[in-house]
Amino acid sequence: MSRILAAAMSEHLGEEIVLKGWLSQLRELRALSFLLLRDRSGTAQVVLRDPGMIQRLAELPRESVLEVRGRVAQRGDGRPGGELHDPEIRLLAAASESPPFDLFRPELNLPLPTMLDYAPVSLRHPRRRAVIELAAAAAHGFRQSLRDRGFVEIHTPKLVEAATEGGANVFPVAYFERTAYLAQSPQFYKQMMVGVLERVFEVGPVFRAEPHDTPRHLNEYVSLDAEMGFIADHRDVMAMLRNVIAGMLGEVERATRPELDLLGVELPVVPDEIPVLHFTAAERLLGAAGASGGDLSAADEAALGAWARREHASEFLFVEGYPADQRPFYTHPDPERPGFTRGFDLLFRGQELVTGGQRLHRYEDYLAALAARHLDAAPFAGYLQAFRFGMPPHGGFAIGLERFVARLTGLQNIRLATLFPRDLTRLSP
Amino acid sequence: MSRILAAAMSEHLGEEIVLKGWLSQLRELRALSFLLLRDRSGTAQVVLRDPGMIQRLAELPRESVLEVRGRVAQRGDGRPGGELHDPEIRLLAAASESPPFDLFRPELNLPLPTMLDYAPVSLRHPRRRAVIELAAAAAHGFRQSLRDRGFVEIHTPKLVEAATEGGANVFPVAYFERTAYLAQSPQFYKQMMVGVLERVFEVGPVFRAEPHDTPRHLNEYVSLDAEMGFIADHRDVMAMLRNVIAGMLGEVERATRPELDLLGVELPVVPDEIPVLHFTAAERLLGAAGASGGDLSAADEAALGAWARREHASEFLFVEGYPADQRPFYTHPDPERPGFTRGFDLLFRGQELVTGGQRLHRYEDYLAALAARHLDAAPFAGYLQAFRFGMPPHGGFAIGLERFVARLTGLQNIRLATLFPRDLTRLSP
Repeated sequence: MSRILAAAMSEHLGEEIVLKGWLSQLRELRALSFLLLRDRSGTAQVVLRDPGMIQRLAELPRESVLEVRGRVAQRGDGRPGGELHDPEIRLLAAASESPPFDLFRPELNLPLPTMLDYAPVSLRHPRRRAVIELAAAAAHGFRQSLRDRGFVEIHTPKLVEAATEGGANVFPVAYFERTAYLAQSPQFYKQMMVGVLERVFEVGPVFRAEPHDTPRHLNEYVSLDAEMGFIADHRDVMAMLRNVIAGMLGEVERATRPELDLLGVELPVVPDEIPVLHFTAAERLLGAAGASGGDLSAADEAALGAWARREHASEFLFVEGYPADQRPFYTHPDPERPGFTRGFDLLFRGQELVTGGQRLHRYEDYLAALAARHLDAAPFAGYLQAFRFGMPPHGGFAIGLERFVARLTGLQNIRLATLFPRDLTRLSP
Repeated sequence: MSRILAAAMSEHLGEEIVLKGWLSQLRELRALSFLLLRDRSGTAQVVLRDPGMIQRLAELPRESVLEVRGRVAQRGDGRPGGELHDPEIRLLAAASESPPFDLFRPELNLPLPTMLDYAPVSLRHPRRRAVIELAAAAAHGFRQSLRDRGFVEIHTPKLVEAATEGGANVFPVAYFERTAYLAQSPQFYKQMMVGVLERVFEVGPVFRAEPHDTPRHLNEYVSLDAEMGFIADHRDVMAMLRNVIAGMLGEVERATRPELDLLGVELPVVPDEIPVLHFTAAERLLGAAGASGGDLSAADEAALGAWARREHASEFLFVEGYPADQRPFYTHPDPERPGFTRGFDLLFRGQELVTGGQRLHRYEDYLAALAARHLDAAPFAGYLQAFRFGMPPHGGFAIGLERFVARLTGLQNIRLATLFPRDLTRLSP
């Protein structure tokens, strides 16, 4: 007899079925007891009447793994979903001890360090599992949206010879007799691959040696990167990004409706045209409240998010035309506005979600841009080959998967949007 | 007017269209000249009659990026595909110089180091691009096969606290004030996640500090990992692997037919039941030719591959039941045959393609297995949590993406099955 998942039990009313899962809770009442058996789909209720069986289960640590055969009946309390009667129970694997917290409660109210120290177990809680399923759906939606538009998936090296963007914050690696670095982004490689495939994307880890200990930083995260050639300007990239975000949210809705309900997440609507503000217009809007340093602070972004909601009923807002001194050397300048670029950010609910832009595509422009920043061109020789040998106008963007998930679900700490976070102090589990 | 790809030109006979791409070749004949324009889909032929235009193109380095507007006509030489007449040409971006080799020739006969040093340009050759598209299709087929069977995609950390399997060959990373290591595989993490999601897969980089300089080794490669819970034994994993391989090949066939033709690749048929040999039976078969050390050499595998083709008309062969001393500590022993395990390899055309097996699932068994190998359990504490708190019988497998692609396409060196290989001496481009 093949196994049925807990969530599908109600489709088998009156039938004899087999469930497999984890002993989540044993509720011992006077007349009868209930076993709650958790599997990847949900939790099934099993009604127990045999005192010997109840006794044996009571002696098992929670999270022991069981196979339960029984007949599906309407629930005694009238709630939907069915319950299992007349069970036969086989122990597949006993846990050595019960976990130090209750996985059957609606919320896992644990201090963050406990939650993370016990990640292999705390992730079993349905709310944590739901976040992971949502992340998987978002990544799938990202890929699917891009594949449908002729993008090809690539895998670029994470071990690189020089710090990706000439900057600090890289992790050195002892690579045989040399020092290598962990890639901070696939930026250079995805651009090079535009010369080959025109439209590429990558889903992979990136590494940032930023010594920040905040609820918004991870030192290793999953970057969803895309890059496309033959664009007119950054507006083509923004239009593509709009469709990709809509595709990600569409797949999240399609694939994880029960998880969204469990988490109480309301998915945003992506407008056909996301409103766009030029950086200078954003500054004017912010007025005296705006940052004078030419950058947008978190408070600025929040104010702009409120403005977009008020004026355009949109939870998304593009800010384009960032000043050149705030963007990397490969950013394409705005030919009409000296000092400003074709770089943009996408804000979601008043926080930066995506960074993108048009890039330089002419070899001489790269040499000039590097020289202007006093960077030696030699370490960039491999990258610059792509431009020496002909590259079309191109641009792209990068979305942090964990950030996307945290924003969507309202998680207070990005560490809870990933399985096994890496931060200043944490390298395990 | 929106752009048409070269491969779609023949669908627009008689129409005025726009092409965009790279100047691959200018063939100057007496009466007229031909421009070959390469884009991501193929190469289009443009007929040139204007001497001024021909002159201007002749002065451009190859690989300059052009926009060509013209009318699609039948080819003068009667071959299919159409050609572009009466072109107007706009230079989108000039290359600074022509590449040091000809991308328009059917084969790029370059020494390997040149091929790799110039990867951003050599990858533009249609045969190299085809390999990359094939790899993307294989990875997509892997994911799709598993998603269809209830597997969830995960992303596990590549920075780990201890050498993954207690062994050597790890790259150390300077992680703030500590030493971290690059993960050699997601093995421990995918097992832990079986406790959460039951069925998981991951596509991501793995890092092996093996000081081998061979045509079959990379120090960074893409591992296609899957792990599943609630199995009876390793045979369930083998059956799943069979379906995944069939799904990968099916997607390669569906998505990259033109690339397969270009490369002259004949895809293998995956039998409904891949033949299985126990390790001891394989040894008997090999007789005196077999390795006496209890391991299968490359020659042994080749002989077994020939046997499978001869006896079962199969290009695939499972070898199961590897001796315990050849498998990692987490491998599930064969309870019927002391000293042997439920670990298996899948051979393809006489070479190992996939390694997998059933794993231990009981906490005490892990403690005993570690002790038997004189390994301290402390560095494994995070991993062991999963088993302390209840894990079902489970197993999985790992496929090296580059190896899969190299075997399928008959590439002599695995470095050509990846974009930017990392080996003993190579960290760039």
